[in-house]
Order: sequence, then structure tokens, then C-alpha cells
Amino acid sequence: MLFSKVAHHLGYDLTGDDLELSSMNELALASQGELTFAVGKKYSSGLSSSGSKAFLITQDLVEYLPKNASYIVCENVSLSMAHATKLFAPKPIDFKSPQAEVGEECYIDSMAKLENGARIGSNVIVMAGSYIGSNVIIKENTIIYPNVTIYRDCVIGANCIIHAGTIIGADGFGFSHTATGEHVKIYQNGNVIIEDDVEVGANCAIDRAVFNSTLIKRGSKLDNFIHIAHNCEIGEHSIFVAQTGVGGSTKLGRNCVVSGQSAFSDHLEIAPFSTFTARSGVTKSIKESGGTYSGYPLMEHREWRRLQSKIAKLNS
Amino acid sequence: MLFSKVAHHLGYDLTGDDLELSSMNELALASQGELTFAVGKKYSSGLSSSGSKAFLITQDLVEYLPKNASYIVCENVSLSMAHATKLFAPKPIDFKSPQAEVGEECYIDSMAKLENGARIGSNVIVMAGSYIGSNVIIKENTIIYPNVTIYRDCVIGANCIIHAGTIIGADGFGFSHTATGEHVKIYQNGNVIIEDDVEVGANCAIDRAVFNSTLIKRGSKLDNFIHIAHNCEIGEHSIFVAQTGVGGSTKLGRNCVVSGQSAFSDHLEIAPFSTFTARSGVTKSIKESGGTYSGYPLMEHREWRRLQSKIAKLNS
Amino acid sequence: MLFSKVAHHLGYDLTGDDLELSSMNELALASQGELTFAVGKKYSSGLSSSGSKAFLITQDLVEYLPKNASYIVCENVSLSMAHATKLFAPKPIDFKSPQAEVGEECYIDSMAKLENGARIGSNVIVMAGSYIGSNVIIKENTIIYPNVTIYRDCVIGANCIIHAGTIIGADGFGFSHTATGEHVKIYQNGNVIIEDDVEVGANCAIDRAVFNSTLIKRGSKLDNFIHIAHNCEIGEHSIFVAQTGVGGSTKLGRNCVVSGQSAFSDHLEIAPFSTFTARSGVTKSIKESGGTYSGYPLMEHREWRRLQSKIAKLNS
Repeated sequence: MLFSKVAHHLGYDLTGDDLELSSMNELALASQGELTFAVGKKYSSGLSSSGSKAFLITQDLVEYLPKNASYIVCENVSLSMAHATKLFAPKPIDFKSPQAEVGEECYIDSMAKLENGARIGSNVIVMAGSYIGSNVIIKENTIIYPNVTIYRDCVIGANCIIHAGTIIGADGFGFSHTATGEHVKIYQNGNVIIEDDVEVGANCAIDRAVFNSTLIKRGSKLDNFIHIAHNCEIGEHSIFVAQTGVGGSTKLGRNCVVSGQSAFSDHLEIAPFSTFTARSGVTKSIKESGGTYSGYPLMEHREWRRLQSKIAKLNS
Repeated sequence: MLFSKVAHHLGYDLTGDDLELSSMNELALASQGELTFAVGKKYSSGLSSSGSKAFLITQDLVEYLPKNASYIVCENVSLSMAHATKLFAPKPIDFKSPQAEVGEECYIDSMAKLENGARIGSNVIVMAGSYIGSNVIIKENTIIYPNVTIYRDCVIGANCIIHAGTIIGADGFGFSHTATGEHVKIYQNGNVIIEDDVEVGANCAIDRAVFNSTLIKRGSKLDNFIHIAHNCEIGEHSIFVAQTGVGGSTKLGRNCVVSGQSAFSDHLEIAPFSTFTARSGVTKSIKESGGTYSGYPLMEHREWRRLQSKIAKLNS
Repeated sequence: MLFSKVAHHLGYDLTGDDLELSSMNELALASQGELTFAVGKKYSSGLSSSGSKAFLITQDLVEYLPKNASYIVCENVSLSMAHATKLFAPKPIDFKSPQAEVGEECYIDSMAKLENGARIGSNVIVMAGSYIGSNVIIKENTIIYPNVTIYRDCVIGANCIIHAGTIIGADGFGFSHTATGEHVKIYQNGNVIIEDDVEVGANCAIDRAVFNSTLIKRGSKLDNFIHIAHNCEIGEHSIFVAQTGVGGSTKLGRNCVVSGQSAFSDHLEIAPFSTFTARSGVTKSIKESGGTYSGYPLMEHREWRRLQSKIAKLNS
């Protein structure tokens, strides 16, 4: 996609050389050939050191651009970014990929759907009603129970168990907003990567990343109804009990244990070996590993127990 | 359906002329040819002004009926109403409708099911494993991801995105109760209408109305695991973050923002431009628009923050 | 399966006679021909009175074994038990059973999947996209809406309604843990039994038992997004409102009413006719029937209301 075509789509002028762009990415991760964007002075240093050469920015950030950058000055960068993601969004189905490849000793039910480009390792089971999207990779010994949906371009590791009704790779929930209160979709052009030895319960939903990957690391176990938003990273050997949700871009370290109906805000970083009792509501990052937490607002579990007994006394 | 047949089914006598009845409806909305019902003196004025001519009522309400009304006096109107809904319930599949019609430039996967009577607009995608019920209407440019279920008679607008695993039009949760603690199903004979430009995340459930329609208005965006009960009305451009639930008949105005794991009781009216932070528990209607709320019991967000700091001090 | 083969798989020596074992079970329920296990002195009396003849135990429990018992002394019984469950786990699909049997007057959509060994009673509807696993029994007059998944060996009663997207019989969430923080799957070798006249809403998940059965008793009604963990028992005519979860092995008596977003810990016993208001968090058993409860921590509803008014006063 030529940068000039993006400019035309957004209704703005391009300053600098026209460039061939392969995708979009956030400022800190964008490399040459990727379109990126910035709003606000806090990104000024990120701009000057960016690996990208193509930017959507506000006028006041132009001076911080790296040399030879090409850019579009936007009135509302967030909105223009959303509109631009549509240009880079792959179609829901890739009809042009070659026919799906299936390894040895697999059982693929005739009522399962494998889109073109899917690659299935050896000894995999895909049961009836499941959908394996374009270019999805499923590694050896994994079992996909019935009525699972795996959106295009996602990767499922070896020895995984994905229970029925689970959805992997649906769009993350991202929108920019117009002045009149309408929501403009930020197309979710990343994917989901599930590493080896992961088990995902029934009727879960793990959303694809806006850019790059949502990542479920090796050995993690998810119960039913787990919601993992776009761009999350779940550490190795984590445990998520039923009906828990994790907000966008939140990262948990290894061996976290999250009890039922808990929730995490977006953009948090949670230290490894953290434990959360039932219905924890986590809104701040946790730096120290090995703690046990409860409540909403969240506090240390001991403190929460003490607080509950204090609260109970209000009634006496 | 003749009113006399309903009376026979319920085991009661019909008073007044026999009438041909097309459906059932609540008192305030019922028109001629619709069976309605009332329990308790508070409905006396509603009875006398009703557009219906056919009633299930208790003896004490007979005097408030409009002239020339036909009626059945029931011992337990709620139970009789439930039994009557079964008579008006359409079959799960309408085999008698003509074959589904599909517009131009559509992609309907061969592993998707279109029941008779479905009408699909132009440029629609229906992916593998999705079920489009009898007489469902899907308007142009909409995409239905895999393993979606749309029950009969529902309507999906143009430019909508329905993510995998979502269920639209399952029965609302309504029962009447016998004296011995059994639950008698109130058949859910309405539908769901989703207007244009709506996006619904993965594994959501939007229930059909008992009578009339559950309505999701233009431009609204729903994250994953959203539960919308029967007869709700969601205003234009509303935002629902993951794992939120809305109780039956609750109506939200336009541009409400509802954060994750929040919930609304039934029969509420929520003013437009209301914002609810994570895990709000809303049990009362909100009349003034533009407020921000938190907590359960719900309060203004500022007040909730102040209260949390007060509660925290109990531990010091 | 010979006990000696289990011993070999676990890497331990078998003491006593070799035995043919048909399955595994918990100590209190295991009969001859079933492998069982015990950790800790509290099981000493259970051991001596056990109906089983085959045990995985720690060295200190050997003296409590019944006469003529065969046993394996394990370093970590919990881990060895988990490894052993894999040996007794049936394959996801039983290809050897005879072709599915379908009763009279049924409608089984050509896009539904019936595995071998399934037995469908008369007048049953199975809609498109639904999966009926090996040896599943569905009794008369039941309707299975689209995209439902019923795992192998489960039983659905007569006159049931299972709404779209619901998963019955997925694996319960059970793992043993290694010293280095990895989780070893406890295979879930039981099933789910749903009795007559049960309605299950859209996108629910009712997990199969680790041993024996998860049980939903006659006349119960579940709204959408209900999570029922392994080995639960839900009493007759219970009501579960949306987004509620029940932890493993918890048993509720008849006619309980559980409002939206509530949750129960595991291994509780709840007296019949108990009512729980919205978002109740139940962590202790309830012995007295007929109470109404609220809050987390849970308390009597009246007390909770009083407490909320006291809490509100903190802000004044």
C-alpha cells in the first residue's frame, strides 16, 4: 500500500517521499515499511528514535520527526489512524492461499471447516462444527473440540486442548470516536498466538491484537468464559478460573493464579506468581512477585480480610 | 387462533364474543386481534383504554374492561398467560416459507445454514457454521463470522459485524410459577432487531422479546460476553465492555458507555450519555443525562471514589 | 486396565495382587474394580472401610488399608492420580459404537452431527450446527437449538430446551501441580446428566464430572452464560439468572433462586429454597432452608441492606 493512497483515503496531503507500506504498528514497535502514529508531546522522543519512516501526527509533533520521514498532519490522529487500519485489514477469508495442509494421523471431521492456507500438524483432532481460518497454524497433538472458531492467521501450539464454543482471534474491541459520538472501528490486524500445552475451556474468547499478537504462553490453563482482550500477554503456567476478564494490553507474568469472576483493567503489568482471590478487580500494575490480592479496589488479601471484618462491625 | 380455543386450552370459560387472535401483547401495546392480560387494580385504567378486545384477567378487574370486551377470568393470570403464550409460539423452524433469498455479491459458506424465508442483502458474508433462522433479514454489507446463531424472525441491519459464537434471538428468560414451585415457560414470541452499523463481539447473547422486539440501535458496539435480556432497548452509539449484562426491558438512551462486568436490573430507564465504570451495579433508573456512576449499590463516580477512601481508612 | 500397567505408567512398584481396573473414583464412592487414592491421615478410616481394592497412597497410610488391598506408594499422590486419570480417559470420539439411533418424529438437521452410539428419543429436534457426542442420550420432546455441543456420554432428559451455543460436558477444570509450577491435567472421566423439563439458556457451559456425574435436576431453568463446574448438583426447579457461576462439587437443594452475576465457591452445600440476590458471592455452606442472602462476603439480605446504609453514611 502506497502512503499516498493512505493520504488520499484520509483526505489529507502527504509530506515527504511516497513509501510502500506493508502494515501499521504502534510507535515503539514500528519498523521501516510500517505506518505509525503519535498524539501528544510525550511521544516526541519516541518519534525521533522510531524505526518507522511513515507517520500520522499532529502539527505540533512535526519537529520531532526523524530525518527523511514522510508524514500526514491530521486534525484528529486517533480518528485518522482508525480509518487507516481499514486499508491494511486482511479480508475475513483468504481465498488465494493454497489448500489447507493436514499432517499425519489427524482426524478432521467432515463437518469441520478448514480455510485455505491452514496448516495442521500431525495427530491433531478437529471435531465437527469447528472453523479453522485462513493460514491458521495448529501444531501436533492438539485437539479442537466441536464448534470452536479460530480466526485467520492465528497460531495454536502443540499438545493444546481447546474446548467447544471457544473463539480465538475475534476482533479486539477498539474504536476511535467522532465529535458527534459515533465510533469508528480500529481494524484489528494482528493475531493470537497460543503456545504449547495450553488448555482453554468452553466458550472462552481470546481476541486478536490490533497490531502484533495476543499471546498465551506455554502451559497456561483457562477455565470457561475467560475473556482475554487484544494484545494481552498471559505468562507461562497461569491459571484463570471461570468468568474472568483481562483488559487490553495487560501483561501477566508466569504462574499467576486468577480466581473466578476477577477482572483486570487494560495496560497493566502484573508480576509473576501473583495470586488473586475470587472477584478481584485489578486496576493498577503489580511490581512485586508472589503476593496474594483481593477486592475491588484491590488490596493485599490479608488487608482485605481485616477490612471485611471492620466493615461487618459497622452493622453491630 | 380463536379465543375459544385459548379458553379451552386454559380450562376456563370465555365470556363475550369469540374472536380471532393473531398474537399476544402487553396491555399498554395490545391492539385489536391481540390477546392481553392484567393483574391488579393498578391496571384498571389501562384496561378501559386498551386497544385490545380480548383479556385474561382476575374477577376484580372485570368492571374496568372496555365495552364489548371478551375475557377469561383466571385464578392465576400469570400462569394462564404463560400457558397461553405456548399457543401463539411459532415453531423453531418455519418449513413453509419460500427458499432463502440471497442478494448480489454475497459469500454464503456452504457450511452455513440458511433456513427458509431468510432474506440476505447484497454484499453480505455468512461464514461456516453460522445459522440464519427462518425469515431472518440481514441487510447489505454485513458480516456474520463463524458459528453465529440467529434465531427465526430476527433482523440484522446493514454494515453490521457479528463475531463468532454470538447468539441472537434465543428465548428471553421468563417463567410463571406454580404453587408447588414449578416454573411454566412464557414463550418468547417476539424477536431481536439490530439496526445498522452495530458490532457485536464474540460469544454474546441477545435474547428475543417476549412480545414485540429487543432493540439494539444504530452504531452501538458490544464487546465479548455481553448479555442483553428480552425487550431491552440499547440506544444509538452505546458502548458495552466485556462481560456486562442488562436485565429484561431495561432501556438505555444513546451514547451510554458501560464498562466491564457491569450489570443492570430489569425495567430501568437510563438517560442518554450516562457512563458506568467497571462493575457498576445499576438497580434504579437514571433520569439526568451525562452522569458518571460506579459501585453496587450505584452512586456517582466521585462519591464512590470518596467512599472507597473512607472505607480504606477503616483499616487504619 | 491392569493395575500393574498403571504402576508402570506412574513409574512405581505395585504391592499386592494385580487387578483388573475399570475406572477411577474418589475414596468414598469407589467400588471393587475402581482405582482410588488418598492423601493425609484424615482418610485413614475411609481407607479401611473402602469398597475398593486398589489404591494410590502415601507410605504413612499403608497401615490403614483394608486386608488384601493392592496399592502403589506414591511420592505425590495428587500428581500420580492425575497421571493415572489419563489412562482411564475415553477418547473424544467413540468410533466403535454402533450408528446413532433416532426415534420417531424427530427432526435432525443434515448439518447437525450425531456421533456413533448416540440415542435420540422420539419427537426430538436437533438443529443445524449442533454436535451430539458418542453415546449421548437425548430423551423425548427435547429441542437442541443450533450450535450446541454435547460431549460424549452425557444424558439430556425429556422436554428439555437447550439454547444455542451451550456446551454440555466439556472437561471440568482440574489439575495437579508439579514442584516447578506446571499443571498436570486430571482427565475428566465422568459425564453430565440433565433431568427432564430443564431449560438451559444460550452460551452456557456445564462441565462433566471428574468421576461420576454433574447433575442438573428436574425442572431447573438456567439463563444465559451460566457456568456449572464439574460434579455440581443443582436441585429441582432451581433458577439461575445470567452470568452466574457455580464452583466444583457444590450442591444446591431444590428451588434455589440465584440472581445475576452471583457465584459459589467449590464444595459447598446449599439448603433448598435459598434465594440469592444479584452478585451474591457464596463461600460457605448454608444449612437452613428458605433464607435470602446478598453480598460478598455473603450475609442475610436484611443485614446486607442495613450494612449498605451504614456504609453510605461513611460519606456524610
